[in-house]
Amino acid sequence: MKAAIIAVGSELLGVARLDTNSLFLTECLEGFGVELFGKSVVGDDPTALADLIAFYLPRVAVLVLTGGLGPTADDITRQAVAQCLGRQISIDETLVEELRQRFASFGIVMAEVNRRQAEVISGAQRLANPKGSAPGQRLHQDGCEIFLLPGVPREMRAMTELHLRPWLASQPGTEQGLERRTLKVACLPESEVEARIAPAYEEFGRQNIVVLASPGEVDLQAVASGPVAERRCRLEEMQGRLAELVGEPVFSLDGATLESVVGQLLLAHGATVATAESCTAGLVAERLTRVAGSSQFFVGGVVTYSNALKRSLLGVEGETLERHGAVSEIVGRQMAEQVRRRLQSDYGIGITGIAGPGGGSEEKPVGTVHIAVAGPRGQLAHRRVRFPGDRQSVRQQSSQLALELLRRMLLAAPGSGES
Amino acid sequence: MKAAIIAVGSELLGVARLDTNSLFLTECLEGFGVELFGKSVVGDDPTALADLIAFYLPRVAVLVLTGGLGPTADDITRQAVAQCLGRQISIDETLVEELRQRFASFGIVMAEVNRRQAEVISGAQRLANPKGSAPGQRLHQDGCEIFLLPGVPREMRAMTELHLRPWLASQPGTEQGLERRTLKVACLPESEVEARIAPAYEEFGRQNIVVLASPGEVDLQAVASGPVAERRCRLEEMQGRLAELVGEPVFSLDGATLESVVGQLLLAHGATVATAESCTAGLVAERLTRVAGSSQFFVGGVVTYSNALKRSLLGVEGETLERHGAVSEIVGRQMAEQVRRRLQSDYGIGITGIAGPGGGSEEKPVGTVHIAVAGPRGQLAHRRVRFPGDRQSVRQQSSQLALELLRRMLLAAPGSGES
Repeated sequence: MKAAIIAVGSELLGVARLDTNSLFLTECLEGFGVELFGKSVVGDDPTALADLIAFYLPRVAVLVLTGGLGPTADDITRQAVAQCLGRQISIDETLVEELRQRFASFGIVMAEVNRRQAEVISGAQRLANPKGSAPGQRLHQDGCEIFLLPGVPREMRAMTELHLRPWLASQPGTEQGLERRTLKVACLPESEVEARIAPAYEEFGRQNIVVLASPGEVDLQAVASGPVAERRCRLEEMQGRLAELVGEPVFSLDGATLESVVGQLLLAHGATVATAESCTAGLVAERLTRVAGSSQFFVGGVVTYSNALKRSLLGVEGETLERHGAVSEIVGRQMAEQVRRRLQSDYGIGITGIAGPGGGSEEKPVGTVHIAVAGPRGQLAHRRVRFPGDRQSVRQQSSQLALELLRRMLLAAPGSGES
Repeated sequence: MKAAIIAVGSELLGVARLDTNSLFLTECLEGFGVELFGKSVVGDDPTALADLIAFYLPRVAVLVLTGGLGPTADDITRQAVAQCLGRQISIDETLVEELRQRFASFGIVMAEVNRRQAEVISGAQRLANPKGSAPGQRLHQDGCEIFLLPGVPREMRAMTELHLRPWLASQPGTEQGLERRTLKVACLPESEVEARIAPAYEEFGRQNIVVLASPGEVDLQAVASGPVAERRCRLEEMQGRLAELVGEPVFSLDGATLESVVGQLLLAHGATVATAESCTAGLVAERLTRVAGSSQFFVGGVVTYSNALKRSLLGVEGETLERHGAVSEIVGRQMAEQVRRRLQSDYGIGITGIAGPGGGSEEKPVGTVHIAVAGPRGQLAHRRVRFPGDRQSVRQQSSQLALELLRRMLLAAPGSGES
């Protein structure tokens, strides 16, 4: 079974917005083994939309249209579908009355233009919209099931769950769905991850492992299809094998972010952390506190951007700064140790580096960063790295490596109650 | 003149990636008055692609295809175009030789599979790729100009500049381009911005003003078309009028971010800033330091997430914390004043609040934030707000208001040399 998605709306043909509804719909379709044949965006032009529907109709078994169901003149989806299929449109007076009551419940007298939302295409089944006023429609033509859903994401999502998903589940063969599991890897280059998982490509098929790289992180998607029990079993096996091949840098088997994994580990150890950041300037603190309830493991931090503050807030000696420079192993180490001591946390993170674009030298080129993590039993991890990429990328990769070093130190530490 | 864009690649039909190349291409096309008729994504299926090309061919004057030009079997764009147009494909041996030399220059012997990249469609003009090995092609059929460009964004961008733009410029009528200018507004609700600019909708046409809202910011795009001199004149006029209608909350007429505008103002005043953050936990510091060269105006900051650190790092008294709570006007003010004094900066920012999801009460519900900015002449701005939205949205809006209060204080301050 194949499907196509058409997003309707001239605003989606501009330079500022993308149709993201299709990602949600694709995931739903995949879950029932329905493959996406293609997707398109078209403006508020009834003829263009009617032609596009006619293009997809003989090629797919499910056609989902999003947007263009509102009350104004540029909401042309109902009209275009009727035009394409040669059907009539009529106003459903019961629906008009429901719309009127919906507006009344908000204390508003319904504007007459809203009658357009009660237009029903002949032969179509109306789909209730629990989150808004524009109802959807579902109709069948020449072996293709057509769904008209609103374009507002929360309405589209709710109606996908309420109407599209149950319909898909009721179709023969859709128990052979497709499912994905994401495994996350910290601080390894994409090429290195590829090299490590090469045997898994052989064993499970290259097309069943999707690699997505971002600064400091590689996400591996394992993909399996078939009946639920069978595909889940296969996903377990794939995850296990991928984790084994990649090894220690795997930090998440369920899509959790690195900051939330570190937060969970700190909680499990009953331990706290504090941060001393220079080039990342608060990014590590900001990431750790994205986790709800982070006040249980994060005490705070200092952003010692200037050398004066490295001295006054952290007690790094002026002579050390002068002799080794602010971007040096010893300063990174002292930042981690001192922030731990002064802010009275169990663990301390220190980061000092050159994010660029200025400030680089031959000896310490842009991208050079010293990252250190200090622990409660005198542990100290340090890395000197040179990250590629622009200012934001260097900062992101630095924050990622700092959190990863802390994660490894926590994994190596004995159980809880350490402070 | 109308155009369509087709992105080729099965990976773009999955749940993790969107075709973003089309935004860049749309902006280029718009600049020459070429309107986008529609855009589509199709997988690595030559017949599906050939059918889609046949659909767009009679409807547009420019058809841009991105992706599917690599050397592997799933790179099917050349084949699909030839199939659709009934043309032959041949290997260009001169091109093979060039590819071989390109690989040799990296010290690599070219794999034979790369010969596929030298396939040229009969009647097509080859388009040089300055950023990669896959060349593009350009051909004409039935009044439509077809461009085959690579899918890798930096290659696609370079080839758009090198081939598509000059071709568009050479066509009659394309001097009537469309241009956009972005005006940015801080900390006003979208509805309030809409109300203020209502007269501009009347004066310039509703369709020529695009409103894009994100947490703490509303961007207004002024759109004008026509010959260059005429449309720029119109854009100036629209920008001036919009800025006048919205007033003080307008912080940028050229798309610059709030943090960079604040950075420029600090530089102009020869002044520095330091931050004391609780619920935003480093976000303001991180934003200020996204600006290259920020060490000239940002000295550093403290993230006083725990009450203990509000006391030890900022000297907020235990009694104050106990009597008023950490989320209170007096604590916000003291944070701003103390961080300014202790970190020896001209300006100080203090933020304390409840980002949620936990920690709210009847008196201080989730989203309650106190934001204060202290200046070098005893100035102090304070706001108590209750932001809607989730944890990240509350934090983003808080950082935005803090920067906005600082911007206004800087605008009200006398010239430079104040410290």
